Amino acid sequence: MTRSCLFCSIIKYKIPAVIIYEDENFMALMDKYPINHGHSLVIPRSHHESLLSMTPSEVGKLYSIVSTVSKAVISAVHADGFSIGQNNGRAANQIIPHVHVHIIPRYAGDSREGKWPNRTIGNMQQLTITSQKIRSVLLACTDIRMPEA
Amino acid sequence: MTRSCLFCSIIKYKIPAVIIYEDENFMALMDKYPINHGHSLVIPRSHHESLLSMTPSEVGKLYSIVSTVSKAVISAVHADGFSIGQNNGRAANQIIPHVHVHIIPRYAGDSREGKWPNRTIGNMQQLTITSQKIRSVLLACTDIRMPEA
Repeated sequence: MTRSCLFCSIIKYKIPAVIIYEDENFMALMDKYPINHGHSLVIPRSHHESLLSMTPSEVGKLYSIVSTVSKAVISAVHADGFSIGQNNGRAANQIIPHVHVHIIPRYAGDSREGKWPNRTIGNMQQLTITSQKIRSVLLACTDIRMPEA
Repeated sequence: MTRSCLFCSIIKYKIPAVIIYEDENFMALMDKYPINHGHSLVIPRSHHESLLSMTPSEVGKLYSIVSTVSKAVISAVHADGFSIGQNNGRAANQIIPHVHVHIIPRYAGDSREGKWPNRTIGNMQQLTITSQKIRSVLLACTDIRMPEA
C-alpha cells in the first residue's frame, strides 16, 4: 500500500466506497463519478500503478473477475452494451495510479459526437441501490465465490 | 466460425492480416485502422460476439495474452502510456461482432479535447515493420510460448 493512494485507502476501509464484491485479491466497487448508470470498477488489492508491473497470470485473474462482474452489472442495469476500459499512465488519462478496470454500461444513443457521456457526481443512495442489484445477480451466479456481506 | 465474420476469416487465413502472435486459442494482430502507432488487437480464435458468451476463465486467458502483448507493444513503440479497451454491442460502438481487445499506445498530448486520436488507414509496410519489432520483444520474453513464424 502507498499512503496517498485512494484505492489503497478504500481497500483498507479507511475511505468509504460502495463495494459490490471483494475477495482476498480483488475488489469491485461503484465508480463515484459514473460515466453511465452502473459504471463499476474492479481493482487488485495489491498496489500496481499499471498493468506493466503485474504478471500475465495476475492480469488474467483480474479480468476473470471483470468478466463475472460485467455480466452481473449488465443484467442488473439492463444496459444495451458495455465497454471495458483500463488506462495506464498520464498519457492515457489515468487519474488514479492504481490499476482499475472500468466496466461501463452503454445505452443506445448515449454518446455525444464520438465522445463518452460526461461523468456525473454519483448519488450515494442510488449507487448503493444499484450495487445491491448487481450483488443480487452475482449471488445467483455459480462461478464466483461471494464472501458474506 | 461464422462465414461473414472478418476476424473468423483472418483466423482461417482467408483474409490477410499483419499477425504478431498466435497460438491454438488466440491471435494478436496489428489494427488496420490504427488510432495510434502500435495499435494492436488480441482476439480469441473461437467466435464470440461479446464477452457475455465467454466463461470467466476464457476471458482471463484472453487478457493474460493481452498483458504480455501489451508489454511488448509498449516497449517496441516507446509509448508514454497505453489504454486497453474492449467494446460489446452496437451501443458500445462495437463494429465487428467478434470479441477483440484493443491495445492502444498513448503518446503525451495525443488526445483532442477529450476525444481519442482519429483512426488512420494503416500503411501495410509500416504495420509489418512494427509487428516485427513487437515480435522481437515477445521473443525475448520468457512467459509466452512463441510458435515458429
